[in-house]
Amino acid sequence: MRTTIIIAAVGLALTSQVAWGVAPRNEPVQPIPAVAVTEPAKVELGKKLFFDPRLSKSGFISCNSCHNLSMGGTDNLKSSIGHNWQQGPINSPTVLNSSLNLAQFWDGRAADLKEQAGGPIANPGEMAFTHELAIGVLQSIPGYVAEFEAVFGQEVLDIDMVTDAIAAFEETLVTPHSPFDQWLLGDDDALNAQALAGYQLFKQSGCVACHNGPNLGGTSFQRMGVVEPYQSTADTIGRAAVTGKDADRFAFKVPTLRNVELTYPYFHDGEAATLEEAVDIMGRLQLGRVYSDEEIGQIVAFLKSLTGEQPRFELPILPPSSNDTPAPAPFG
Amino acid sequence: MRTTIIIAAVGLALTSQVAWGVAPRNEPVQPIPAVAVTEPAKVELGKKLFFDPRLSKSGFISCNSCHNLSMGGTDNLKSSIGHNWQQGPINSPTVLNSSLNLAQFWDGRAADLKEQAGGPIANPGEMAFTHELAIGVLQSIPGYVAEFEAVFGQEVLDIDMVTDAIAAFEETLVTPHSPFDQWLLGDDDALNAQALAGYQLFKQSGCVACHNGPNLGGTSFQRMGVVEPYQSTADTIGRAAVTGKDADRFAFKVPTLRNVELTYPYFHDGEAATLEEAVDIMGRLQLGRVYSDEEIGQIVAFLKSLTGEQPRFELPILPPSSNDTPAPAPFG
Repeated sequence: MRTTIIIAAVGLALTSQVAWGVAPRNEPVQPIPAVAVTEPAKVELGKKLFFDPRLSKSGFISCNSCHNLSMGGTDNLKSSIGHNWQQGPINSPTVLNSSLNLAQFWDGRAADLKEQAGGPIANPGEMAFTHELAIGVLQSIPGYVAEFEAVFGQEVLDIDMVTDAIAAFEETLVTPHSPFDQWLLGDDDALNAQALAGYQLFKQSGCVACHNGPNLGGTSFQRMGVVEPYQSTADTIGRAAVTGKDADRFAFKVPTLRNVELTYPYFHDGEAATLEEAVDIMGRLQLGRVYSDEEIGQIVAFLKSLTGEQPRFELPILPPSSNDTPAPAPFG
Repeated sequence: MRTTIIIAAVGLALTSQVAWGVAPRNEPVQPIPAVAVTEPAKVELGKKLFFDPRLSKSGFISCNSCHNLSMGGTDNLKSSIGHNWQQGPINSPTVLNSSLNLAQFWDGRAADLKEQAGGPIANPGEMAFTHELAIGVLQSIPGYVAEFEAVFGQEVLDIDMVTDAIAAFEETLVTPHSPFDQWLLGDDDALNAQALAGYQLFKQSGCVACHNGPNLGGTSFQRMGVVEPYQSTADTIGRAAVTGKDADRFAFKVPTLRNVELTYPYFHDGEAATLEEAVDIMGRLQLGRVYSDEEIGQIVAFLKSLTGEQPRFELPILPPSSNDTPAPAPFG
């Protein structure tokens, strides 16, 4: 039944595109491509793992804790809460449409979703576990062992299988059919005049230089604070931590603007509470342009047209632990 | 669509009962009654609120954090994690089938689910918010205001509406159609010989004196440690905190045994990690009986036959905050 729901959602997206029956408009932004689920059993397994707090030391924090699929794939906090209520160093990016990014994490230190998925599990400030302990937990749960065997053909689990399944689920988390995508596919009525004016301004004033492609971002690393320096509350040097290059200091992966209405607060430090504030700061710091209130309202109207259909699926029911499952250690 | 799923599940349970076509066997345990959803819009609203961490000071903890519907309506921890990683004083009881209990909380201090729902929101050790602040947050979210108006006929929210909706959702969280219920309804093949022997032993040796009714518990308060005292790690006097009576010291609401396979660890202090350990301790302390390993195996087989169909529904998508929504204060 869960598989059926996923396929139905994909089918809907395809139908919508077929209904318009035209190639997308020739724009620097492309519609979100529909996802074809080729390995439904792996996706279902990955969904369970994404929601399973037993991948954390405490037994309390799951992937969904900070990439909450009820809330645009984010936690809507400036920075996240980790094990023992540690304050994270950076704002949690949305998992929605993240497969469309050139790399993962703000500094791009993971090449893809599979590599990313292993990070938080073993980060002492996040889920605070180790890959070995996480595998030990999963291996002790008969329901998981059976599912891993069905998907991967072996009963002996490893972290590659875990991250592969999580990534397979995350790849389904796309949000097609936003009003803007409907407009891109030829429906003139999908955007009102204010949003359309916002899109024209977004292109003409240079936002699209970085926020382009199907994800309106995720295609490059850019320095935050081009025209004016940005005074951040976050203690991070950005991309330079990965490349070691001084030129990459305070460069970050350009975040997607898809569903940006849902992914507040904004910037890598979460210091912009509203879209209006974020647009104003971006204009000043990146483009040297002071937008009027009317212009900000137009761009924000455009940005809100980027909210797509959120992934719809049944809350997964997790297989229970066995007598051999190590107990979580939330306070240990 | 979500409504349809709920009704379909109810329909399935009804069909099953009709298929057997007989009154339940005359036993001290009754099948879980199917739920008729009479107010689907209220249930949907309550589901969103149940999953919404914005009802907590941190913006991180929701009802589902400790009553996780992926994990039998519990957090599977000895005691729960509250605001700022505070350790809770007691094991979180399952929300599944909780409408069948005579009262709520281990000490029964809330008469019903509606009264219960307001407790954790305002408990400084749990969600650490106030009802006033929670209402302020919800009132600032246009999507919620529209839903509350549709359900309650007014745009001005109050905590009674919030807890009423949460309770309406929780009342749908029943788990019919367990193997034991199938047996109760006449299907002789639904239990194997070991589980059936376990049920006979459960009745004959006295467990059923407290664990009776459709929820196999939840019908009375009983002292933990009747034959021998129980040395608890939890700092609580139980029911006496509500009644002020010395006779109620260390009395607790008898927990349901429905889905007990999923609601580990056991007892109000969560100190019994396995069903085998819980059965052994209960026999010694409550009944003065030392069960053999074979007998424990039989009772555990019976207990595992109490796992019913878990509630199946779409993960709710929450309405986004507005520019007027107060920011959460996880570290404030």
